[in-house]
Amino acid sequence: MTAESIQRGSFIVLDGVDGCGKTTQAERLVRRLRAEGTQEVLHLREPGGTALGEALRDLLLSRDHDPSPAVETLLFAASRRQMLDELVEPALSRGAWVVCERFHPSTFAYQAWAGDLDPASVMALLEGWAGTPRPELVCVLDVPVESAARRRGRPTDRIEDKGLIYQQHVAEGYRAFAERYHEAVLIDGSQSPDVVADAVWKEVTHRAR
Amino acid sequence: MTAESIQRGSFIVLDGVDGCGKTTQAERLVRRLRAEGTQEVLHLREPGGTALGEALRDLLLSRDHDPSPAVETLLFAASRRQMLDELVEPALSRGAWVVCERFHPSTFAYQAWAGDLDPASVMALLEGWAGTPRPELVCVLDVPVESAARRRGRPTDRIEDKGLIYQQHVAEGYRAFAERYHEAVLIDGSQSPDVVADAVWKEVTHRAR
Repeated sequence: MTAESIQRGSFIVLDGVDGCGKTTQAERLVRRLRAEGTQEVLHLREPGGTALGEALRDLLLSRDHDPSPAVETLLFAASRRQMLDELVEPALSRGAWVVCERFHPSTFAYQAWAGDLDPASVMALLEGWAGTPRPELVCVLDVPVESAARRRGRPTDRIEDKGLIYQQHVAEGYRAFAERYHEAVLIDGSQSPDVVADAVWKEVTHRAR
Repeated sequence: MTAESIQRGSFIVLDGVDGCGKTTQAERLVRRLRAEGTQEVLHLREPGGTALGEALRDLLLSRDHDPSPAVETLLFAASRRQMLDELVEPALSRGAWVVCERFHPSTFAYQAWAGDLDPASVMALLEGWAGTPRPELVCVLDVPVESAARRRGRPTDRIEDKGLIYQQHVAEGYRAFAERYHEAVLIDGSQSPDVVADAVWKEVTHRAR
């Protein structure tokens, strides 16, 4: 088999507020892809995934620092670019699929929409500096923020500390992202995990396979 | 005295290859400003200065990570923006002067010129995301890279490890910056420290006082 005959993998993002079910759904999607015969599926989370990304994750979520939304945006962009170059592009090239928790919609929702930065400037930064490879599909899981806070079930970090009104702005930002960007689809995450998993799978088979 | 009657301070940058004499000249400039009656002078270095910046400095100079020039640019921009917001703008507002080692010329020289990123894109990122306050004066100390390497006199870090040809590209990048940006002036740093200090002082009195 020559290198040219390898079919490039697909890049799928799951995003949404803390506690929306991203990790559960990412794990189910990874299992289903494997069950359907995809040889290699890489499961990533942002920020993180790479050694540099994990170090930046610690900085970003620590209460020792209080970076502005602009500084957060630059750090998320750095972590994302490193992940794209180091992990995502090589994986897609060798035919693997990539399932990633969080991507541009998180930066759009938290730093631009809730952090009061200009959404167009944020997206221009991300697309210029952390833009490729692009995901074929972005599933935004939409849940009421009150129930998401209950579902989270672990200690909060610096960003989660910002309270319910902030989280509501974030949720609005996610919906705005899903309206504006054609690769994104809004899925009702308050349904049962089985129903959500089927909705995600339907989008995957429709858009990315 | 009302807040409006405070005269805003000036922001001076000293930049150039490792070992060009930035620290020596920054210290001399700080002493001279104080001797001439400037009440408060803040001496900063990049990356660093803030808690977040020092953490990013450790990441950037560590051999544990090998970020691409694009990732480095985003991290330097984050560190710079944090320093501008947290330290530089408040200092200038209260009438202090700021003397900073390294700023945009370093990113232009290392990441764009020697790192092979598009210089215009790098400067657009920096000006858009880490652009204000702008320095009134940027002194680029130009020295032959061979003598700079000898003058450094301490263990090297990850970026300094890249060798003499890389450092020569960096030095070219600094000269290109000084040609392109009106706030920058190229000073022959191979002269005696007294002569260099006088050249810096002449620019300060001419442009920033």
